[in-house]
Amino acid sequence: MANVTVELGRRTYDVHIGRGLLTQVGVIARQAAGADGRTAFVITDSNVGPLYAEPVRAGLKAAGYAVAEAAFPAGEPNKTLETYVGLFDQIFAAPVPPDRQSLIVALGGGVVGDMAGFVAATLLRGVRLIQAPTSLLAMVDSSVGGKTGVDHAAGKNLIGAFHQPRAVVIDIDVLRTLPAVETASGLVECVKHGVIRDAGLIDFIQEHAGLLTRLPDAKAPPASPPGGGEVCAELIERNVRIKAEVVAADEREAGVRAHLNFGHTIGHAIEAVAGQRPGAGGEYLRHGHCVALGMVAANRIAVRRKLLHTAAAIRVEELLGQLGLPTRRADLSADELLTIMRRDKKAHGGALRFVLAKALGDVDVCADVTDEEIREAVAYLGG
Amino acid sequence: MANVTVELGRRTYDVHIGRGLLTQVGVIARQAAGADGRTAFVITDSNVGPLYAEPVRAGLKAAGYAVAEAAFPAGEPNKTLETYVGLFDQIFAAPVPPDRQSLIVALGGGVVGDMAGFVAATLLRGVRLIQAPTSLLAMVDSSVGGKTGVDHAAGKNLIGAFHQPRAVVIDIDVLRTLPAVETASGLVECVKHGVIRDAGLIDFIQEHAGLLTRLPDAKAPPASPPGGGEVCAELIERNVRIKAEVVAADEREAGVRAHLNFGHTIGHAIEAVAGQRPGAGGEYLRHGHCVALGMVAANRIAVRRKLLHTAAAIRVEELLGQLGLPTRRADLSADELLTIMRRDKKAHGGALRFVLAKALGDVDVCADVTDEEIREAVAYLGG
Repeated sequence: MANVTVELGRRTYDVHIGRGLLTQVGVIARQAAGADGRTAFVITDSNVGPLYAEPVRAGLKAAGYAVAEAAFPAGEPNKTLETYVGLFDQIFAAPVPPDRQSLIVALGGGVVGDMAGFVAATLLRGVRLIQAPTSLLAMVDSSVGGKTGVDHAAGKNLIGAFHQPRAVVIDIDVLRTLPAVETASGLVECVKHGVIRDAGLIDFIQEHAGLLTRLPDAKAPPASPPGGGEVCAELIERNVRIKAEVVAADEREAGVRAHLNFGHTIGHAIEAVAGQRPGAGGEYLRHGHCVALGMVAANRIAVRRKLLHTAAAIRVEELLGQLGLPTRRADLSADELLTIMRRDKKAHGGALRFVLAKALGDVDVCADVTDEEIREAVAYLGG
Repeated sequence: MANVTVELGRRTYDVHIGRGLLTQVGVIARQAAGADGRTAFVITDSNVGPLYAEPVRAGLKAAGYAVAEAAFPAGEPNKTLETYVGLFDQIFAAPVPPDRQSLIVALGGGVVGDMAGFVAATLLRGVRLIQAPTSLLAMVDSSVGGKTGVDHAAGKNLIGAFHQPRAVVIDIDVLRTLPAVETASGLVECVKHGVIRDAGLIDFIQEHAGLLTRLPDAKAPPASPPGGGEVCAELIERNVRIKAEVVAADEREAGVRAHLNFGHTIGHAIEAVAGQRPGAGGEYLRHGHCVALGMVAANRIAVRRKLLHTAAAIRVEELLGQLGLPTRRADLSADELLTIMRRDKKAHGGALRFVLAKALGDVDVCADVTDEEIREAVAYLGG
């Protein structure tokens, strides 16, 4: 059991990492969110609810909360304002209505965390929130830092709020049931953290790649989490420490928090144009796959600028390959990607901002990347 | 032209009060919201847009913004999540899409301010906001303080956020076209400010009641704002100062800001049960009418507790009467009102919290008001 503190002044909170922690959400909520709350609302999705809502509900009840649940169909396509509206209808229909001391527990992956966090940010102008992430991606990345929101037809995460949780509860036992493709998506963000802040983390992931990718799958749940528990717990703790440091330095993404977008500028565009169509081998690209390709492209730009050694870029590509992630994709159109990138909300005063690595563990934000450089990097992905 | 500063640390802003200021929104926005914004979105409603959007748009364009408009049908029944969703659809369909430096201008009464403020709070996780209130109520109350949000079938203002504007621009010339019933609603909140903070304001309103209620009407717009301009400007400035002080002392409504709920605990309940049905004389109760009745009821409770002198309570009733506001209503059921009040989000740990006056200009929050006291006060309203 490890604790990582996210230092944010009056909004400081702890990330609890350990085994069997879902049953402790009630106890942790009482410590972190106050003794005066009467009602708790567990927001989850159709995948995670049936697996893990019960221990969370039981623990909340034992801690004295009246508990109600609000759920929505799993999947990023449901991260919409329509789902948001429906969750409020469920919440206000609960036997005990919410008040300003009420607690929201976000139980699920990144989509649930974003959605439930946004509900918590705006229910009665903001209520207490516990993040209980159940995917590796949500554990190492999205559950920490207070970003919440939903997608719009015009783009991802266009509507939302900053709303920090009172605590994050990471129960690594739930990784037993995480589909392999989801685990791989989480590992992408771990590699990202290594590239932007900690070359040692790259070493660690490489050393344990075999263990970390001997992946569990929902269809045949093994007896224990991947990496035997200890490796998995250390991986999560190291990543949460990096995320917590970046968020503490720049809560509202006015500065260094932008480093977390490494690989995401091109990655989001790839997701927008290629996420819905199969590649040459019939495979579909997931969010993590797209970010992996985005990191490869960003490193290619950095290498061509002579910011980054070729050897370092190759090392990242090889590691992504070891983790079962794509590093090449032939069917991408640079024109299509450029159109999407310009539309992206991270477009800033008309200029695209890229996070480029100078070395493993050290990045800068560059606003002067040209269309030509992007075209060359996309061509490299196709090569 | 007067300026009142709302002191909120890094979120400090000015309230500009004067004549002809709508044409200055662009200039004020550049000063208050930064030189780097490229796009401005004017959010307004079907009443105010046709009257006043044009000078605002022209001023914004002259200040270098690409301007788009998003509008919705006027009226509190439209302050819903559905309208909120529709506004985002309009905003993302604009020729120049929004970015993090974009500006929202809320042009309208309280409903527009709440709705546009909530859009600004959540567009790209929060963008810059200028409040340009066009009703007396919004000028003296809701445009200052950062409360934003929408109603839900389960109750008023149940979904929203705190989001402070970068500036508030009050053009008193627009009061020419404000319907008389809306002016009266604004005067109710002025009386409220007097009761909670400033007995001298009660004197001022009483002294100028004739002028302030020689009300303009949209059907026959007079040449100048009510109160000849000067009285009106002084009224607004005095009220904004009170609101600004309360908000500066307690931005998130953890303490003294609750004083602003004076008259609203019973008032909201009256609005919920009686706002949709005509009284004995066929008249419908508006929000302001309900709050006026709520203030009379709250003062009745205070008098019965021997907190407040009978003479002070009578003085408030007489002033409300002078302003054309109701102080009695025969068809109210205490049982109905109590049910609604318990449901109200201001219910706090199970106890109803009442703001009660100890003297004109001095109030306290009381959590021990009994159902019996409320029944007696409702009976008094019927008497």
